[in-house]
Amino acid sequence: MSNDTHRRHDGRFHWQDVEVLAYKQSNEAPFKDVTRQVLFEDPDLNCQWRYFEVAPGGHTTLERHVHVHAVMVVRGRGRALVGNAIHDLATYDLVKVPPLTWHQFRAPDDEPLGFLCLVNADRDRPQLPQAEDLAALRADEHAAEFIRV
Amino acid sequence: MSNDTHRRHDGRFHWQDVEVLAYKQSNEAPFKDVTRQVLFEDPDLNCQWRYFEVAPGGHTTLERHVHVHAVMVVRGRGRALVGNAIHDLATYDLVKVPPLTWHQFRAPDDEPLGFLCLVNADRDRPQLPQAEDLAALRADEHAAEFIRV
Repeated sequence: MSNDTHRRHDGRFHWQDVEVLAYKQSNEAPFKDVTRQVLFEDPDLNCQWRYFEVAPGGHTTLERHVHVHAVMVVRGRGRALVGNAIHDLATYDLVKVPPLTWHQFRAPDDEPLGFLCLVNADRDRPQLPQAEDLAALRADEHAAEFIRV
Repeated sequence: MSNDTHRRHDGRFHWQDVEVLAYKQSNEAPFKDVTRQVLFEDPDLNCQWRYFEVAPGGHTTLERHVHVHAVMVVRGRGRALVGNAIHDLATYDLVKVPPLTWHQFRAPDDEPLGFLCLVNADRDRPQLPQAEDLAALRADEHAAEFIRV
């Protein structure tokens, strides 16, 4: 039976025949210490299923887009900004990011944050915040403290 | 922020505002000791993301369908028949079930098998094996021993 049918986990959130990729092109958007693995990307499936890992102290890009994110934390813990609310995330918690909603994930300083993230196969490109978007986000003092750009 | 954005895991593979459902109608197909939870089913997402749990000694239905399954084990371990090959599954292993491929998941006798399963939102109904299908599967002695119908 081919590896495509059964791909084993190696015990450290890497998988057989799954490449560890850069999160994004480094000049494309601000982020810190994030990797990306595409777990399932099948022409017969209308979604792409990815695993992202944010190293201790790292963060994903603050961005928004029309497509939604469906997220499950599977390693460690962390925090997420969704809209202007900050959520404390524990292992196996679920997060939904609605359309056109600013969001950013951050790992704590002492452990990585690993999460599964499901998106539509056909989706729009992320938008980065402009000065007026940042000003609006920073009107909330907790969001102002949280975001990394 | 609504519960729809952040739904907490309760520590035992149940989630806030996620109902534990019957796997199927009990008269619809043979199975043993399986529950189903729908984690994400969003009109903006082209897939449905579910969590299935097979109790110790239980099994899912032996079936096939055109739509594919993308699976990640997240609790315990078990075995899966995919086509006529039997796979030993550990936590976080990935399984893909291709179109029109017979498959069945079994938990060991001493612990549950819990797995995430992604499917297209728009999908066909499962087919059950007919006598000739079972005869073909049972031509392989390991598959013959494995299947539960």
